[in-house]
Formats: sequence, C-alpha cells, structure tokens
Amino acid sequence: MVILALVIFFALSALAGSDPLPSWNDTAPKQAIVTFVEKVTKEGTPDFVPAPERIVTFDNDGTLWCEQPNYVQGFFTIDRLKALAPQHSDWKEKEPFSSLLRGDLTAAFASGTKALDQIVMATHAGMTTDEFAQIVAEWIATARHPKFNRPFTELVYQPMLELLAYLRSNGFKTFIVSGGGVEFMRVFAEKAYSIPPEQVIGSSIKEKFELRDGNPVIVRLPAIDFIDDGPGKPVGIAKFIGRRPIMAFGNSDGDLQMLEYTTSGNGASFGLIVHHTDPDREYAYDRKSAIGRLDKALDEAAQKGWTVVSMKADWKEIFPPKTGN
Amino acid sequence: MVILALVIFFALSALAGSDPLPSWNDTAPKQAIVTFVEKVTKEGTPDFVPAPERIVTFDNDGTLWCEQPNYVQGFFTIDRLKALAPQHSDWKEKEPFSSLLRGDLTAAFASGTKALDQIVMATHAGMTTDEFAQIVAEWIATARHPKFNRPFTELVYQPMLELLAYLRSNGFKTFIVSGGGVEFMRVFAEKAYSIPPEQVIGSSIKEKFELRDGNPVIVRLPAIDFIDDGPGKPVGIAKFIGRRPIMAFGNSDGDLQMLEYTTSGNGASFGLIVHHTDPDREYAYDRKSAIGRLDKALDEAAQKGWTVVSMKADWKEIFPPKTGN
Repeated sequence: MVILALVIFFALSALAGSDPLPSWNDTAPKQAIVTFVEKVTKEGTPDFVPAPERIVTFDNDGTLWCEQPNYVQGFFTIDRLKALAPQHSDWKEKEPFSSLLRGDLTAAFASGTKALDQIVMATHAGMTTDEFAQIVAEWIATARHPKFNRPFTELVYQPMLELLAYLRSNGFKTFIVSGGGVEFMRVFAEKAYSIPPEQVIGSSIKEKFELRDGNPVIVRLPAIDFIDDGPGKPVGIAKFIGRRPIMAFGNSDGDLQMLEYTTSGNGASFGLIVHHTDPDREYAYDRKSAIGRLDKALDEAAQKGWTVVSMKADWKEIFPPKTGN
Repeated sequence: MVILALVIFFALSALAGSDPLPSWNDTAPKQAIVTFVEKVTKEGTPDFVPAPERIVTFDNDGTLWCEQPNYVQGFFTIDRLKALAPQHSDWKEKEPFSSLLRGDLTAAFASGTKALDQIVMATHAGMTTDEFAQIVAEWIATARHPKFNRPFTELVYQPMLELLAYLRSNGFKTFIVSGGGVEFMRVFAEKAYSIPPEQVIGSSIKEKFELRDGNPVIVRLPAIDFIDDGPGKPVGIAKFIGRRPIMAFGNSDGDLQMLEYTTSGNGASFGLIVHHTDPDREYAYDRKSAIGRLDKALDEAAQKGWTVVSMKADWKEIFPPKTGN
C-alpha cells in the first residue's frame, strides 16, 4: 500500500504541473472555464461547491463529436434500413422506406415526425437490448465518415476530451444529455469519452422484461418512451440525475433549456455553446442549419453571459491525431 | 500532497485490519458475501470483474429500511392527504379520500390501483420538483415510526449500511432500485445511505419543463410515467444503468425479476434476499404479507442458489444505535 500511496502522489504531482487543456487556445473560453473550475473547487469560499454536487452535462452530437452532414445515428439508421431491406420486400413500394432507400430524404420525411417514428421503430425495435448493443457495436467498428474517412468514434473533439478529463480530475461527475438514443450512445460512450453507461442520458423507446426459455431479457418495443431534446433535456436531468447541473455544454437550440436550467440555480453556474465556425477543419453552420440549428440559443448566450466557443478561433486541434488504421 | 498520500495509506491500512461487517453474525450469508467480493475483485482470476462493471442494486423498502406496518411513503401520503384536506372540502364525501381520511384503508383501496393512482396524484403532483423535495424533507425530518418512535431515517438496517460501505470500498457502485417514488427517495438517500440522487432508481410520474416568470422549473404532472417494481425493475436497470448488475439485494416478490436478471449474466453474480424473521427486534412476515410479500422469490432462492438472510439468526444488530434526539 505504500506503493499505491506513492503512485497517487506522483500522479497528482504530474497533473498539477501541466496544462490540462493543451488543445484550447489561450482565449476567453479557456480562461472562463479554468476560472470557474478554480472558483467552485476552492474550499472555504462563497462559491465552493462540494464534489457530489459538481454535476456537469454535455450534449453529444455537435458538442462532443461531429454531427455533419448527418447525425451519426442517422447514418446508422440508413445502413440498418438497407441491411434489413431484403427481408422487407414491401418497403420498395411503401413510404417512408422506399424514398429513404433511394436516398431521397426530402420525400422520405415529407410526413415529418411520423416518418421518423416509423423508421426508428423499423430499425431500433423488436430485438433485445443485448442484441441491439451488438448491432450498434458491429456497425460503429466499421462505419466511416464520408468526408473525413475515419471511424465516427475518432471524430470526437480533442478539446472536449481534455475538458472532460480536466473536470473529472477536479471532482466533477460528467454526464451526456443528448437527443440521441440512449442505448445507441452507451455502446461507445465509455470508450470514446470515459463516460460509463449510467451517466449517459438520451431518448428512449419503451422496453419490457421477458423470460425467453427461462432466460431473462429486455425487449425493445416499437413505441417512443422519452424524447431527451429541447425542453426534454431538463426533464431528463431531473429524471436521471435528480440534481441541477452547475455546468452545461451544448451547441444548438436543442440545448437551450438545458443551459437555461443549469444557469438558473442558486449557486455559481456555467453555460457554454460550441459554435461551428470552421469550414476547413470541420463544418460551419448555425442559424439556418437543419441539423444542429443554433439560433435562439446564440441570442440567449449573449444575454445570459454563456461562453461561446468559436471552433476556428478557440480550438488548436479539432480531432485527436489519426491512429494507425 | 505527501500528507494526502499518507492519509490514504493509513485509511487503507485501517480498513484492511478490521471486520467490515461487524453487525453480521459469522454465519453463511456473511461468508457468502465476503467470498463473492474477494473473488470478483481479485485481478488475474477468471471471475475478476473490472471496477466499472461492479454494479450492485438494492431494493429499498424492507431491504435497506423498515417497511412495516406501512411503507414510509405510505405514511407520508396519508399525512400529506390530511394536511391538504382543509383545502379540499369535497374529499369528505368523495372516495377514496373520505375512507382514507377516516383511516379505513380496506374501503379506500376497494377499487385497487385506481384509488392508489388518485391518491398519489392528489399528494405527489401539481408542484415543482423543488417544492416536492422541500415537502418531503420537512416531513421526514419530523415524522416518527409508530412502533419504534424514531425517525424513519434511523430505521435503516445497520448490517446493510455496513454492506454498502464494504462494497463501495471494494470498487462497487451502489444503486437503489425500488418501487418507491424516485423523487421521494432522493431526498434522504444520500444522507441515509451515502447513495447520491443519480444512483437512485424508482417509480416516477411525468414531468414537464416550464418557465415561470422567466425562471425554469420542472413541474410534476398527474400521470404515472414508470413503475419500477417486479418486471419493471430490470427495465429500470436497463433504462437508468444500461449495464447488468453483478449483485442484487431484495426482500420480496417485487424483487424477483431483478434477482433473476442479475444472476443470469455471463460472469459471476450474487443474489440475496432479506427474510424478515425477527418479531421482537423488527417484524416477521413473508408469504402472506400484504406489504413486502415474499413467496415466489423465496422458492426461487432455493432453486437458484440465492443467499437468504434470516434477520433473527444472521444479524447481530438491526438498527443503528439511537442518537441523542
């Protein structure tokens, strides 16, 4: 145990000596983050927050990883639909499946949420939770981003990985609060972000318990249970965490209410928006984008004093360096 | 930091030298628990389980604290109903309220779940989550158990408090998975059990996000969202934790499916049932009890090799020593 104590000692020493956010330029956002973290972790000061209350929530798509030109779960859904099509000969004539299989998204989603609902149910329901996790794991191990030609799990933002680690080393508990499917994200969140499944909150479909040949399984049913987006995010936080975060990070209007809720508690709080301003290294989009629209939340950021990160100006690196594959 | 390292060293040394479960007799259940924990925490052995996967779930009523002669939340509900009655003059004539206010539970619940639903909605909905937490906190600070004349939060089982601490010190993450209301339990779980709100899973009502005078609040709506009991427990585990526990503790048929689910994973697993066999120090009940019925799960424990604790034979102490109040 002397060895354990020494290991802890040297680990802490190493940590104290280096910049925990090397991929962030020394601009205002980095300074605001570090100032806030130092403030709430300093015992005996009025802004001190005890460790168990240091809850921080991160949106996923567009905040922790790339969401253009489609949500990663969107790519998964289309690939899944194609894989299942041979077993569903009626899809050739049936909307929204026929349009989607032809690649015509506009026609496919002409009926709006109803079409989305049908497609999600056809691709995400009817199997056990273990089977679904297996399907996602196999897909994400091989699928690649059309522009960057890298696995999606490598298109996570390096500055945000550093931020997650920095916050955890300061006693924060890091959560994902995303409109994405909770069981989709849980497959990769631990490896990609070091966030365990129980700290991933997302949209869900209904499930039921069943004994199959005496073996207990959880079956995914074709019905929406909860949409963790927009006003659903603070509800998801109340439901799953039961405590108001003191920091929240988002990038779109879907994060507006989470940011409002987080920054209206009694104590110190911090809201941040990632603004996609870098068409060369990633993408540039905001007020008019169909995916990740950032409009109201950008206006409110100015009024409420939320920090706005310009990816182009404030981030030295966007993605982690390429690995060998 | 040398001091921190030394503190950790001595804390670990102290821990290693003493019995972590002093309120457990040296009978089979204690031995089974310790054997299992040593087995799954020993690196390099076939049964080793990495720390992030050491998920353990505890039922609350009857497993962590006393549930007789009524669930604590039952006492709360009746007190709440009485407190609200002056504002609802129609309750005098209206079932199930009139019977319940007269103390006639049989008549009140003649209509079964419908009556329960009406009563829960009248007492648990219509306020914000912050207001509800305040109501529960005030009630639990003053309410007392009719037999033991102690606050309910002192009627937690001392052996289970030791077990929770022992498991956490071995890298387990401790969760409550209870049929009780999640926002009811979260008010006291951290203080009573050192289990933070985000590790408490329970039944819930629907909620919505609202801006009140520009201030974001979560409002509790009069509609059931999720019943975390019986077959709902493994569903709650899948929904909130997203990972199969390797240990589960319960005391009634409401825990049967959680025990089945936990003990049917691929690796080592452990199921335990607390059998209430001590009419002198607590209560004795099982197969015929209206509250906490233990019938099917007791039969299945024998078949499946789950450990059964007899409170009378296996526990030296039931409750923590009285404090001064």
